[in-house]
This record gives sequence, C-alpha cells and structure tokens, in this order.
Amino acid sequence: MTAPLRAPGGFPVVGIIGGGQLARMCAGPAAELGLTLSVLAEAADSSAALVIPSAPVGAHSDVEAVLAFARECDVVTFDHEHVPADVLAALADAGVPMHPTPEALVFAQDKLAMRERLTALGIPCPRWTEVHTTAEVTVFGDDVGWPVVAKTPRGGYDGKGVRVVGAADELTDWLERASAEGSSLLLEEMVGFTREIAVLLARSPSGQAAAWPVVETVQTDGICTEVIAPAPGIDPDLAARATEAGLRVAGELGVTGVLAVEMFELPDGGFVVNELAMRPHNSGHWSMDGAVTGQFEQHLRAVLDLPLGSPRPRHAWTVMGNILGGEHPELYPAYRHVMARDPEVKAHLYGKGVRRGRKIGHVNVSGDSVADLRRRARHAADYIEGAVTE
Amino acid sequence: MTAPLRAPGGFPVVGIIGGGQLARMCAGPAAELGLTLSVLAEAADSSAALVIPSAPVGAHSDVEAVLAFARECDVVTFDHEHVPADVLAALADAGVPMHPTPEALVFAQDKLAMRERLTALGIPCPRWTEVHTTAEVTVFGDDVGWPVVAKTPRGGYDGKGVRVVGAADELTDWLERASAEGSSLLLEEMVGFTREIAVLLARSPSGQAAAWPVVETVQTDGICTEVIAPAPGIDPDLAARATEAGLRVAGELGVTGVLAVEMFELPDGGFVVNELAMRPHNSGHWSMDGAVTGQFEQHLRAVLDLPLGSPRPRHAWTVMGNILGGEHPELYPAYRHVMARDPEVKAHLYGKGVRRGRKIGHVNVSGDSVADLRRRARHAADYIEGAVTE
Repeated sequence: MTAPLRAPGGFPVVGIIGGGQLARMCAGPAAELGLTLSVLAEAADSSAALVIPSAPVGAHSDVEAVLAFARECDVVTFDHEHVPADVLAALADAGVPMHPTPEALVFAQDKLAMRERLTALGIPCPRWTEVHTTAEVTVFGDDVGWPVVAKTPRGGYDGKGVRVVGAADELTDWLERASAEGSSLLLEEMVGFTREIAVLLARSPSGQAAAWPVVETVQTDGICTEVIAPAPGIDPDLAARATEAGLRVAGELGVTGVLAVEMFELPDGGFVVNELAMRPHNSGHWSMDGAVTGQFEQHLRAVLDLPLGSPRPRHAWTVMGNILGGEHPELYPAYRHVMARDPEVKAHLYGKGVRRGRKIGHVNVSGDSVADLRRRARHAADYIEGAVTE
Repeated sequence: MTAPLRAPGGFPVVGIIGGGQLARMCAGPAAELGLTLSVLAEAADSSAALVIPSAPVGAHSDVEAVLAFARECDVVTFDHEHVPADVLAALADAGVPMHPTPEALVFAQDKLAMRERLTALGIPCPRWTEVHTTAEVTVFGDDVGWPVVAKTPRGGYDGKGVRVVGAADELTDWLERASAEGSSLLLEEMVGFTREIAVLLARSPSGQAAAWPVVETVQTDGICTEVIAPAPGIDPDLAARATEAGLRVAGELGVTGVLAVEMFELPDGGFVVNELAMRPHNSGHWSMDGAVTGQFEQHLRAVLDLPLGSPRPRHAWTVMGNILGGEHPELYPAYRHVMARDPEVKAHLYGKGVRRGRKIGHVNVSGDSVADLRRRARHAADYIEGAVTE
C-alpha cells in the first residue's frame, strides 16, 4: 500500500476506516490543522475518497487490508462502528493506536453491552431486557406495557435494526435469526418522551473533555432530519444533568474522540439514554458552522491527544437540516437556487449518488430567531431534495 | 493527464493553476460545497497537492501542460498571478472558461497597466510615472519629493520587486535590467499614510458582487503580518468610499472571483490604492473563521457564477496573525502548546517546509476586545514560529 504523502514539520497521519461522509467532513479541518488524512475506502468513489488524496480501497472486515492500511498511519479512527472485533483485535495486537479503543467501542457496537454497562453506572435508561424466546417477549411486554421496542444488538443504524411490536409473534423472524446466529434481542419499553435531545462531547486520551451545548434532534421515520442548537427552552438543570451524564459515560467507558449520547427528554423533567455513537455524529453537524470548534476538527484533535478546542457556539442559534435523497439525481441546479434565495445558508454536500432516503448532505443556518432558522433550513434542504420546487 | 474523479449530481470541476496555500485553502470549502478541485501543482508535495486528490504536476508557464490540465476542468482559476500572457491566450483560444479573465488579470499582473487604468477611472492613486532612465527618475523625485518608491511592473509580491530610493543612481541596476528586457519601471511617490487598509470583495461573471468589511493590514518588512477585521475606528464614510472604489474597480475591470484592493489611509481622511490582487488574498484569511462566507468559498462560488454567500462577520472582531518560518522546522510541538494555551485560536497550517520569512500558516481569533485578540493572535503566531517560547 502506498504511504500517504506526509507534510513536513512533524505533523501526523490520521487513518480513518471507512470512506463515508463523516470521514469526508474531516478533510477540511485536517487541511487547516496541517494534518494528513488517509482513508480506507469502500470504493474509489466513496464520499471521502473524492476529497482525500490517500484513499486506498479495502474492506473494513478484511484483516490484512486493514493492517496494511494502519501501518502507514500514526493513529486510526473510524467512520462507522462496523469494524468486527477480530479486526480490532488484530490491530491492537499489531500495536496500532486506535481511538476509540476496542474496549470502549464495544459499547457503541453492542446495544446489550451498552445497556448493561449504563445500568451498572446508574445512568438513566428505558427499562430493558435481553430476550431469546417469544415467551420472554410476552413477559416483558406484559410487564412494561405494549408496544415494546425490539432492537438487534449489533449492526443497526438510522432506524434499521429497530422494530416496534405490539405482540410477541411479531418478532418470530428476528428471534429465529438471532437463535441461528447464537445471539439474542434487546427489548426496551416504549418511552413516552416529550422530545429527543443529544449530548455531544469529545474526550482525549489524556482525559480532557469538552461538551457542546445540549441540542434537540428531530427524527422522521427513524432518521435524523433536523437539529436545533441549543435545545430550545431546555431547563438549565436538565441540560446540566444530561451533560454530566454524557461526560460520566465518556470517562467511565474510556471513550476517546467524539461521543454522541442520544437521549429522550421525559415529561417529568428527566431523561433516559437512547443510543451511543463513538464518532462524529449527525447531531453535531451544526457545529461545523455554529461553534468555534466543529465536531470534525475536535475529533481529530481528540484522537491525536491534542488539546481540545472551544465548543462555544458562535451564534445564538444554529439549525441543521438533513438533505435526503429524493427523485432528482441532479442536485447542482437546485443548490444554485438555494444559494440565490438565502446567502446565509451553509450547504454541505457529500458527493454521494442520490438514492431515496439516503443522507446526501445537510444545511446549517445561524442567527437569532429559531423559528426563522428552522423555516429557512427546512426550505433549503427540501429544495435541494426536490421535495419543494418554489 | 488523468481526469479528476467527479462527484455525481452535476457538480463541476474547478481547476486551479498553482498549488500554493491559496489553492490548498480552497479544499475545505470545495469539499463542503460538493465540488471537485483539480490543481496544477509545482511539485507532488506542493501545499495544495497534499490535500487535493487531483494534483498533476506541471509548470504554469508550460502551454501544453496547462492546456492538458484545463481540458479536464469546467472552469480554471489561479493560485497566483504569474501565468504568462501567451499561456492565457492559448487557454482562451482553446475556449477554456477562466476567472479572472486575461483581460482583467493583466491589471493585477502589470502595475503600470493598473496605474494607467485606475488613473483613467479617477480612482485615487499615489502620484506615479513610468521611467526608463536615471534622468527621468531624478525629474520625478525632484517633483514629488525624495525618497520615492520604485517597482518592477511585473513579478513582484510580498515586498519583492519594490525598492525605496533616495537618489536616481540607486536604480541603475534595475534600469539596466529593464532596458535589456525592453521594459521599464514604475515610480510612485512615498505616501505619508496613517495606516494600511484593504477592501476585499468577490464578483461573479453575472455581475453580482459582495464586499467584506474594510480591514486594517499591518505589514512588517513588506510582508503582511496581521489583519484586523473590521479596521478599528475607521470613519464610516471612508469605509463606504473605499468599498465603493473597490466595487467600481471590480466592475470596470471586469474582475471575476475575489479581488483585494490594498490601500493607504491618508491623514486627510482619504485613501489611495496601493496594489490589486485578483485571487483570495492574505487580507481575507480572517474571513475563513470570522465571516459567514469565507474568501475561499466565495472565490469558488464566484468563478462558477454561483450566487455569492453572505460576507457578514460572525463576530465583532476577528484578528489574523501570519505565521512566518523561523528557526525550528518542527512545528507540531509548538502548535500543540498554542492549542492548550488558547482553545479559541484557529490554527491554519499550510503543509510547507519552514524557511525563514516564508508564510507557513496563520491563526485567526474572534471576540469582543480587539486589543485582547491582537495580543492572543500575535502570541500564538510567534509561538508556532519559535519567536517566543513562553
């Protein structure tokens, strides 16, 4: 494998396994910081490979490819959580510095391990259980109330691997598959939440941590479509407790790099943790334009154990709107129109082909009126998607 | 020449002739905007080539290399003003869209042409003349007062090609060389200015223009070392007249892309134009962190005739400090220290080897107190340079 071309001056090479948009969005900050990136990409035209000179093609599940890639890097991090345990173990055996470490990453890869650990730490979670049989599903549903939420412990994202079920027999197929794989399912009570919020923070190997303000996230069909930073009208006490919980999770689990803690805000003023992600996360895209230090810069600083940057917001409010694939493969004409309509909109496109419902970009817009910003972000995203035409 | 890998969705390829830091700093905005960049680089390890996948190596003076490069691009722009007229003419003959156009660019390449044109437009300039002989130098100096400023019409930058002379015989060597080359020298009166300011704006082929606030620039030994945005305490009337002059120059000369107009502020509240640059410029580096739309994003939008972004500042003040090469080739340890000391400093490193006095990076810092920001920017830049150690 060709070694990435290093800049002079002692600047390191950061390797990212996976060439999706999260790796791509590290490119700008890395160039600014003087760092060299290298990406192990799924394909030569992966989102990140289009903008990063060193982007060898290889599978994240191919031990030899990953090891050859990692040998040319000073530290390795991840675009996604799908690198298998045996590959992580081989990297660790080879002495490759990785952030997050496999020991921390397992809690983002395995939702059962996450629930067990957070519960042991006393972090608020929905009531949950591990099930192998329909009888166990019935017992749990009758206890917490139907419907319940079933999750495959591994491999889910963006609503995949999640099913809301009103009776045990709706899980027969998943239980059979789990049984065949020697695994199980996670069941959780359906939480009656008032809204979804997220704590985003970064933690370095030295233990320095910095949290952005708590944000509100809006999901549509299981996919994040909007983020409002900070969460409008959030009780300062709730924000402080949620942030404290996020920092405690990061410290106790030994997370390094960016950690996103997705939460449900409850009617009683409390919260429960929904999911963890140990990488830059959709709930932090607002920070690229809305904070002094964006999440992609911060992730690079954290995995290199550089001092963290200020997470202070630059504006009273920033709203992020996701652009999902629609009917129209040609994005450029619509995006030109959006630029003309609103010169303050920051458009971020990922260089990905359009497929229905696929995340292909996002917009950020900052200012003083959250209602106005939400309207403008939504319109810009909808227009680029093709969902509105005026 | 291998074609750059295009993103799907109809996004164009922007070619930049020259692989210096100005091309490099387009990489982040291009990735965000979904655009593809291609750079004709001086060497495989040029500043921009380190961060842009398509970076064929070739000389900007090599007609065949430039034509082969340009054929793969939808529009061509420039990292510097040194592309010779015959190369520009060959590109024009081949139908390559270029911004700025050769017709505009000549006024940034040739200081005599610039002085003639601005004077014809009634734009305030220092008193000036074209000279071929020492006798002409003496006449001009005796008229406007000694010392006078001599400039080679072409090829100067960062104080190179500029000499302050107290008598005509101090120009004998330059006059002999000019005579041998069939050229001449530009002489200008030494202006008694109160400070240096700059108007930075972008103009698109459709004629849309957007100007950032007027900034103060501080030069040391002919090299810009600090920029304060906006210019502290500037008379709003002066700022308006200076901006209007910049916009008029852009329109009359048909400038497309970013235009920097360096000016001297005069004791009587007026100004004269010092230099023009038709590309992103050191006086605009503050905008990368300090404005809604930074100059590199705006340049890309302008050369593609996309609607321009808002040049509105995000903060009351932003101060830029240039990092010049010092004694220490290893920058990374110092930069780590700067990050620890001031988490709000935005460091921009260019991936260039350290040579004394070479521009190798800059820092931006934004906030509410200009004195505090100047101190912090200067300290951070000095520390990375190695000029201070605590």
